[in-house]
Amino acid sequence: MQIENILFLSKLNHQIAELINGYKLDKNICYVTEENITEEDLKWADAFVSFKTDASYDYQKVQWVHSLGAGVDHFVHNKSWDEAVLLTRTITSFGERIGEYVLSYLLKDIQKHDQFAEQKRSKSWKSHTPAMLQETKAVIYGTGEIGQKVAQTLAFFGMEVYGVSLSGKDKDYFNKVYKQAEVPKNLLNEVEYVINTLPLTDQTEQLFNHTIFQHVSNIGFINVGRGESVHDADLLQALEDKKVRFAVLDVFQEEPLSEDSPWWNHPNVWITPHISAVTTAKEAVACFVDTLQNIEKGLPLENKVDVEKGF
Amino acid sequence: MQIENILFLSKLNHQIAELINGYKLDKNICYVTEENITEEDLKWADAFVSFKTDASYDYQKVQWVHSLGAGVDHFVHNKSWDEAVLLTRTITSFGERIGEYVLSYLLKDIQKHDQFAEQKRSKSWKSHTPAMLQETKAVIYGTGEIGQKVAQTLAFFGMEVYGVSLSGKDKDYFNKVYKQAEVPKNLLNEVEYVINTLPLTDQTEQLFNHTIFQHVSNIGFINVGRGESVHDADLLQALEDKKVRFAVLDVFQEEPLSEDSPWWNHPNVWITPHISAVTTAKEAVACFVDTLQNIEKGLPLENKVDVEKGF
Repeated sequence: MQIENILFLSKLNHQIAELINGYKLDKNICYVTEENITEEDLKWADAFVSFKTDASYDYQKVQWVHSLGAGVDHFVHNKSWDEAVLLTRTITSFGERIGEYVLSYLLKDIQKHDQFAEQKRSKSWKSHTPAMLQETKAVIYGTGEIGQKVAQTLAFFGMEVYGVSLSGKDKDYFNKVYKQAEVPKNLLNEVEYVINTLPLTDQTEQLFNHTIFQHVSNIGFINVGRGESVHDADLLQALEDKKVRFAVLDVFQEEPLSEDSPWWNHPNVWITPHISAVTTAKEAVACFVDTLQNIEKGLPLENKVDVEKGF
Repeated sequence: MQIENILFLSKLNHQIAELINGYKLDKNICYVTEENITEEDLKWADAFVSFKTDASYDYQKVQWVHSLGAGVDHFVHNKSWDEAVLLTRTITSFGERIGEYVLSYLLKDIQKHDQFAEQKRSKSWKSHTPAMLQETKAVIYGTGEIGQKVAQTLAFFGMEVYGVSLSGKDKDYFNKVYKQAEVPKNLLNEVEYVINTLPLTDQTEQLFNHTIFQHVSNIGFINVGRGESVHDADLLQALEDKKVRFAVLDVFQEEPLSEDSPWWNHPNVWITPHISAVTTAKEAVACFVDTLQNIEKGLPLENKVDVEKGF
């Protein structure tokens, strides 16, 4: 594939341009925003690079679309995709970032940060022994780049970590990986933490609903995948029923979260504004340049999206 | 050394007795408390096993004293010790426990838990990208069992970790280890976190005072060693001067912390009631039984205290 004209569409264009200049690529590069992109731009471009996209764009002339994020649901979920167009995504330190994010909330829980903060307010010197991570178990939905890195992080502390994936194929750092339909009910009942790292696809939309929540017991639920994978009303009910002891939500069906969302006021829900795996411009550009070079050399692309699967 | 009569003094006697019974040791064992211990008990005993001790006890007839905790300052700091008496201490999962404790507060900081909790209260969807641990540096005072395990934990995340010890001897997981007097000033100025894991000895009493705090900049200070190693007024001043951005204190000069302590109300201080390395009865008994067997077989004792050094 020959790529000469590259179109960047991003809020970080300024930063990206500066970093791209550092690579001295021999390409024609144009930077546009959602507001000023034209049909002409897309006709001109061989490659289109963006965090997300508007369905109204016409890709007919573009050969390659590169997502500056890890998720590509904005590009392909519930949309048709021309198979002739190559779609790649950014794979950088997402795994490490999400690993630290997830671990921080597991440790906050197990080290009883809130309880000790409360005791500080009441000047109470009451001893509670924190449990150790190795005494706990987790199920991670998604065993790809991100899920596996989370598993590696938790396994370092001796946690028992189970995975759930489409294939059920065993992966390093997981004690065992199950297919979605074959997760043992008693496993769900035994684990302390359930972590969603799945991309949004037809198979994962509304996946976390009563069907799963009815089997868990007193868990911490962490969603770093997509908000659309959670049935909000069922999660609220599970919190009410103490099936879910607390939830940490980084992603939501609607972002930014609206003022009247029930999550804001829920005492057992922690909210972060979709920051568990921010791509820095530097990392995004490095991944883009790598991908470009691999494409031009005809090398295999680890970050090529299987549009059928959606990741 | 022949040990026949063993005296346990602990608040956990009941639990300990149950666990000890499980080992079916062929020994005479007596369980007492601070309130009912007598001179007769000590004369009878070959071994005395306790978390701490009262200076008024007479050890003349005891051959072996075993501390149920990691620290032995209650036994030897500012006290005379009969060299003929063997002193051992408990080494169990302290390192792992303190590793998780320390990491939990580093992650709380770097993942901006407090900031996002505050944003939740004000329903603010404002993005902040958490830094990654690999972008930060720490100095750990103490490179023994505990310090090294903390270093291993932080190094797993790619942190640069420096050690400080009496000998300055290099140890695994530390980028470099310095002698106390030779810690470079610019290193202190560069690190984000300073962690104390040192035992209380003549060399470590009031070690963390203006001499150190004047060189640091905007650090998180974590004390899981001993409260007596910190000059409280100097730490308060360093917090005031923003040399220390926040402090996490698990140990204090006075425990339990008195109601009028300035730490309770300090907005940038986190308090835990000496729980970072609790010994569970199960672990303590396992370590005691190991030590007893090693003594009787004449094997080397990894947990023998060098009374001169104090650990």
